[in-house]
Amino acid sequence: MRVIGIDPGTQVCGYGIVDCNGPDLKAVDYGVVRCTAGALPERLGTIYGGLRQVMARHGPEAAAVEGAFYGRNPRTAIKIGEARGMVLVAAAGLEVAEYPPATVKQAVAGTGRATKSQVQQMVRLILELPELPEPLDASDALALAICHCHRARLAGLT
Amino acid sequence: MRVIGIDPGTQVCGYGIVDCNGPDLKAVDYGVVRCTAGALPERLGTIYGGLRQVMARHGPEAAAVEGAFYGRNPRTAIKIGEARGMVLVAAAGLEVAEYPPATVKQAVAGTGRATKSQVQQMVRLILELPELPEPLDASDALALAICHCHRARLAGLT
Repeated sequence: MRVIGIDPGTQVCGYGIVDCNGPDLKAVDYGVVRCTAGALPERLGTIYGGLRQVMARHGPEAAAVEGAFYGRNPRTAIKIGEARGMVLVAAAGLEVAEYPPATVKQAVAGTGRATKSQVQQMVRLILELPELPEPLDASDALALAICHCHRARLAGLT
Repeated sequence: MRVIGIDPGTQVCGYGIVDCNGPDLKAVDYGVVRCTAGALPERLGTIYGGLRQVMARHGPEAAAVEGAFYGRNPRTAIKIGEARGMVLVAAAGLEVAEYPPATVKQAVAGTGRATKSQVQQMVRLILELPELPEPLDASDALALAICHCHRARLAGLT
């Protein structure tokens, strides 16, 4: 199964594509789609287009997206929502799973309180990458894909 | 100019299409795209698809979307954001303007504190519709389109 992990953002959106075959995980591609200039509608359109290109190139069957988390600030929450809405439309047609940040950290680093840097190092080890996956948006996206592969495998075993 | 007003929603999303030619406004179509069943990713994908169909049918040049408003509740804010992200991707390629609810009410009913029912009645009068535009999501969307037509006309006059 080929999985795309997506870390939603309205300026920088991370993606990571992982093939899982039983316990074997292999990174296919990772990176970010950026659009830091312009008004929100144009930025969302550009990032949406970039994500669709990545999906067209690699043909993932499933998408793992960071789940909604509720901070205290409604202004931040609406921005997270806007990014999530765009990403979920981009992933329409795929099997979509959402994982909260703590679940993803638990899956790759063994603890829900791992730092982004620790997640990045564990992602490198798990996928046997020659170097640290940069930037952090991309390593977070790879971690989402790894988390989904683990879950899918567990679901298949039970 | 042909304008589509969109009232974002992840279960019911209102749209209203208005042609404006100087001071003359004419309703072309209005209604809602609904998807009340299923998980968020599928609902967003279905409503996105419905909006794209409406746009393909009528070919609007501009979109007027309800602007982000920040309530007190982050959980509500993230849902508003998800709906907005989906709608803004659907409107990509159009000239997109965002108007806060109070601005729209002011534009059609003369006061930012008008009720949805008052907005609905004013929309009917302004567009000379034979009956009240139903449901409220659709009349709100028509009000957004009317607001944008007013603004565009004022901008042209100054």
